[in-house]
Amino acid sequence: MGLELDYIFHPRSIAVAGASESPEKFGHTYFKNILENFSGNVYPINARATEILGVPTYKSVRDIPGDVDYVVSAVPNRDAIDLVNDCVSKGVKALHFFTARFSESGSEEGAQMERDMLSRARAGGMRILGPNCMGLYYPKEGIAWGRDFPWEHGSVGIISQSGGNAGEIISVGASRGLRFSKVISYGNALDLNEADLIEYLADDPETEIIGGYIEGVRDGPRFVKALRYASSRKPVVFLKGGRTQSGTSMASSHTGALAGAQEVWDAMCRQMGVINAFSMEELLDTIIALTRMPPATGTNLLVGGGTGGKGVMSADECEEEGLYLLPIPGEVRDELISNDPFFGAWVTNPVDGSIMGGSKLTPHEVITLIAKNPSYDAVINGISPSVSTNGSASAAPTRAARMLEHTADLANNQGKPVALVIADFTSENQRLLEATLELRRQCVKDGFAVFPTISRAARAIKRLVDYYRWREETD
Amino acid sequence: MGLELDYIFHPRSIAVAGASESPEKFGHTYFKNILENFSGNVYPINARATEILGVPTYKSVRDIPGDVDYVVSAVPNRDAIDLVNDCVSKGVKALHFFTARFSESGSEEGAQMERDMLSRARAGGMRILGPNCMGLYYPKEGIAWGRDFPWEHGSVGIISQSGGNAGEIISVGASRGLRFSKVISYGNALDLNEADLIEYLADDPETEIIGGYIEGVRDGPRFVKALRYASSRKPVVFLKGGRTQSGTSMASSHTGALAGAQEVWDAMCRQMGVINAFSMEELLDTIIALTRMPPATGTNLLVGGGTGGKGVMSADECEEEGLYLLPIPGEVRDELISNDPFFGAWVTNPVDGSIMGGSKLTPHEVITLIAKNPSYDAVINGISPSVSTNGSASAAPTRAARMLEHTADLANNQGKPVALVIADFTSENQRLLEATLELRRQCVKDGFAVFPTISRAARAIKRLVDYYRWREETD
Repeated sequence: MGLELDYIFHPRSIAVAGASESPEKFGHTYFKNILENFSGNVYPINARATEILGVPTYKSVRDIPGDVDYVVSAVPNRDAIDLVNDCVSKGVKALHFFTARFSESGSEEGAQMERDMLSRARAGGMRILGPNCMGLYYPKEGIAWGRDFPWEHGSVGIISQSGGNAGEIISVGASRGLRFSKVISYGNALDLNEADLIEYLADDPETEIIGGYIEGVRDGPRFVKALRYASSRKPVVFLKGGRTQSGTSMASSHTGALAGAQEVWDAMCRQMGVINAFSMEELLDTIIALTRMPPATGTNLLVGGGTGGKGVMSADECEEEGLYLLPIPGEVRDELISNDPFFGAWVTNPVDGSIMGGSKLTPHEVITLIAKNPSYDAVINGISPSVSTNGSASAAPTRAARMLEHTADLANNQGKPVALVIADFTSENQRLLEATLELRRQCVKDGFAVFPTISRAARAIKRLVDYYRWREETD
Repeated sequence: MGLELDYIFHPRSIAVAGASESPEKFGHTYFKNILENFSGNVYPINARATEILGVPTYKSVRDIPGDVDYVVSAVPNRDAIDLVNDCVSKGVKALHFFTARFSESGSEEGAQMERDMLSRARAGGMRILGPNCMGLYYPKEGIAWGRDFPWEHGSVGIISQSGGNAGEIISVGASRGLRFSKVISYGNALDLNEADLIEYLADDPETEIIGGYIEGVRDGPRFVKALRYASSRKPVVFLKGGRTQSGTSMASSHTGALAGAQEVWDAMCRQMGVINAFSMEELLDTIIALTRMPPATGTNLLVGGGTGGKGVMSADECEEEGLYLLPIPGEVRDELISNDPFFGAWVTNPVDGSIMGGSKLTPHEVITLIAKNPSYDAVINGISPSVSTNGSASAAPTRAARMLEHTADLANNQGKPVALVIADFTSENQRLLEATLELRRQCVKDGFAVFPTISRAARAIKRLVDYYRWREETD
């Protein structure tokens, strides 16, 4: 149903209206990205400069000799109507407006411009993305607006009413291992709206998980239908901005969106199995859980790696997130005791590795032994590098590598969701900071779901479990 | 009332029983720290090595020629009773047991050892700190157990039942600018307990704010009395471990503590004006707010620095934390419009700096202009460094420095609580990462309250406001 828009995402040629020589400008970055990565024809449009990055410019889209499928607009808003007219005459299929300051500014003049742009585009059979948005990030096709976005592609599809949030999802998500099929920032949703884009991603074979940031809805009934359809096909996670009075009023000045009642949204998510994230962190954490953990429906949790008081707090936080720290079952306890009577009798869940000095068992052996018991559904393991006292840097990677090996073993051999926790703490100790960053990079590279705190890991696992339970009940 | 314990914290000489040559051991780090930093006499006790770090060892505390006020024990638990006897004969005033594996292991033998240790110490007039704890961090006197703890001292006094949590408070706190008067990790609280230590810090002139991590209470009525007394004199912030069934059971295996009902704790905190923190992050955030922000009792908040969708989410998160994003008052709006009719009419709270390109006003001018209005009680400003496209690193520090200057101006000239938000996001972009770390270091150094997210900043401000409101009502 949504793939009728597929042509928009597969242009053969792209022109950038307002392509710029200034490296800080959107019209430069975007053009540079497609020039270097997009396989079709690219054209810079600029009335003053004769060339951009060595490519001769055109004064107007109408001057371009070949076909132009897709135009990106970075022109001032006063030139928007003319650009729509030019694109329609040229037979352009889709026009993305990075250009802003229309209805979202609250001025009647801006709203009127939008109406004109829309009616002219409709009359000419052209679709509009935006205005007031970053448009399309499609790494597989070499299309991106950010300077540091990865070109490696993946299976996560995102729609976002906010360009800044779309960029944050891509950048922060990428550093945590997420790779994207398509990310679409759609701003004021003048023509192409949230329902169109959700339907598209629901049918898009390159997209396995749909995530989104939304402020308001243009077409309520269609949106509900699109969301229900998408959720019946793939996991869908949404973060809604404008939950409160302050947020709603801010949303109106941001994208002109009228945010609906939060209670309606919450109820709709529950009913449709849409995962309702309450912060950017939760949105990303949940997508990471869905992409980097196997399905699970049980809440019996084993926690490792927390020593002493941290273990106590971990237990509190996991239980408060709705998981259950199953006490060590009798048969496991017997096995632990047969290996080491003293520690075997003492050890609990969370496993406190710091009490085990002098034991014949290592913390890793204890965790593995407990984790393999079928009563446990999921594991959270806190890991950290250690830097040796005498200043030698070699100890840290070694220990980190060993920890990683242990955890890989745990994840690979249990077939259960395993979350790693590596604290975000910015140490004053440069070696410890570097070792932490290196450990995190390695864990992310090895495919692990890595979280900065126990409670965020617990919440992500609970979201995963809730989702697959809903799936089970629905199927 | 609590200063009768003052002699324990001002020893003239310290001996380390179980001082070690191995750099990874507590008995080494502790001895090295006091050897290099403590002004009194220090003595290593070790039956096998003849010297530790160049200092001749003693076989027993009784062999030491001079007086010994304070002994730190890193000996195995089987030697604990003998050590207590030796210390009593020597006239030692306080004995700190890093040594563990007593009642917390759940064994009757361990519990019996503790009872013996206590009765012998009591008979000999000696106080015991611990067992199963890290003891005392007193930077001003050159006493510390950690390798990287700062020697610079401050006004925050901490008691912690968990040594790991005490270490985390010091390390993470230090990286965020906290400096401590004394941090006392007291573990199983066999003799010196939470009530003794709270009373002590309440009267300690070096301590202006008391923070703590607690799992269970040894003497309920005395604890309540001590907490009420402390809270009547200074801000008190506590994090309690063992809020849930899992946490309580973990606490028992960690320090042998029997955690009480959470409801009782919560009610007690409310009544006594004790700030009840629910995570390590919240404990530190609140102490940072109390030490780095002026008192405030109003919840009218101005938020700057969030662009677009981030501003919408910021508004939601701040309102959900109990703060109010006061819309821009009429007289401020008029002033903004008189400076710039278009942006002056459009700008909202949160201030979205990204819409202001081309305006005569800078985002900083807008924020300052709004913040100075007396209706606003507090300000949260999100800042971030920016790295230039062309690879030149110079732009980043310049922009960061400018941002910092603006914010310093905001904080210094308004006399209102100002929180800075610098995201913890670990960028893949090395220059951006370094610029972020440098910006955070500089802000911390300049005395700002820095938080990693808007919602944590908002919560910390709300805690500050709630505390000073309680103070007002009580006085």
